Amino acid sequence: MSFKNIKIVLINTSHPGNIGAAARAMRTMGLSELYLVNPETFPHAKAIAMASGALDVLENAVVVDDLSKAIADCGLIVGTSARSRTIPWPMLTPREFAEKVLVESANNKIAILFGREKTGLTNEELHQCHYHIHIPSNPQYSSLNLASAVQVITYELRVASGMDVVKEQWDYPFATGQEMEYFYQHLEKVLIESQFLKPEVPRQLMTRLKRLFNRARMDELEVKMMRGILSAVEKK
Amino acid sequence: MSFKNIKIVLINTSHPGNIGAAARAMRTMGLSELYLVNPETFPHAKAIAMASGALDVLENAVVVDDLSKAIADCGLIVGTSARSRTIPWPMLTPREFAEKVLVESANNKIAILFGREKTGLTNEELHQCHYHIHIPSNPQYSSLNLASAVQVITYELRVASGMDVVKEQWDYPFATGQEMEYFYQHLEKVLIESQFLKPEVPRQLMTRLKRLFNRARMDELEVKMMRGILSAVEKK
Repeated sequence: MSFKNIKIVLINTSHPGNIGAAARAMRTMGLSELYLVNPETFPHAKAIAMASGALDVLENAVVVDDLSKAIADCGLIVGTSARSRTIPWPMLTPREFAEKVLVESANNKIAILFGREKTGLTNEELHQCHYHIHIPSNPQYSSLNLASAVQVITYELRVASGMDVVKEQWDYPFATGQEMEYFYQHLEKVLIESQFLKPEVPRQLMTRLKRLFNRARMDELEVKMMRGILSAVEKK
Repeated sequence: MSFKNIKIVLINTSHPGNIGAAARAMRTMGLSELYLVNPETFPHAKAIAMASGALDVLENAVVVDDLSKAIADCGLIVGTSARSRTIPWPMLTPREFAEKVLVESANNKIAILFGREKTGLTNEELHQCHYHIHIPSNPQYSSLNLASAVQVITYELRVASGMDVVKEQWDYPFATGQEMEYFYQHLEKVLIESQFLKPEVPRQLMTRLKRLFNRARMDELEVKMMRGILSAVEKK
């Protein structure tokens, strides 16, 4: 996925703090192309304060006086929108959109439009879009903060990009079957010596203990630690 | 998924505005159980301002002086965290966590811990968790705003809940195969009459036009509209 080809376009934003917060949201997800169409107040100290370190995004923001200038070179244009327009438009969920961007961003510039804090995008702006995107939300209270909406969409883009596939990081190798077997033998021996486990009435005790420790999938150090404890108990 | 069983726990938050913004984020996704452990300043006018209508979440927030009081009744406790702790802990992505909550929230209370704006959760707090959750982010700038982090996690919960499965809303039924066939015959006739299409050299014209209109998957009204236009052209 080519993040350089993805433009976040904020239209007619009222509060400069929201522009700064949107820049921060973009930066946390690795996006940098910010376009501002007729922002009410920009630049502004509140934008800088809310950007909180994402200043490069703010400083490189392109301010234009008409939406057409922001989307002129874009082959895919989408608008974020509450549903229920008079004429329905093709809709994507944020996740479906991210999958589409994964396929298309290498060869196309893509614009994602975000409307005014109070009134969103106008119908005229929405009609310039190939798709509308609706962020799933509580029907009784669906008004996401502007920067929160940017955060959710760019988060989906980052997840779809696959660039953060988590490598399992663990400090010690898992204990092997043989190490576990010796540990359980040791444990059983100590439980019998301490008379907590009566071999003639074993009930499910060892089974439950095995289920517990296997569920945790012990590592080598943990097995050594537990056997150290068992040895200490044995000596007493 | 039972949202009533999911607690958002903000620990030692510095800025009351962030508490309000987190309440708003929760409300947009349909969550309401907010716990505040030792907030620096609460209640506060800034919290109310940033909650922007999600006042019920703020007003019902439970303030406690110790984390143990917030998680006492919870069977699954997770902490949001940047990675790279000295002792690795079992990690989930926000999406994996949401899948787990889908399975478990009916029978368990679940706590999601969010730490301080500057320093996150302490090691002691993280050690009380079954899992740590890391929001995928730009390694060069990974500091999500607190309310943005709440937004992303609760968004994943809402998506996993499946409660917003979008019904395709369209105002007219799709055109049928027969309607499309009549439309293409009509179109071809007009193109021949207007001498744009020469039957002896048809090239790929009709094929490309069919691909275009089929790609748009026309509805009944759109076909009628196009045939109306064709008829108007024919009369002239």
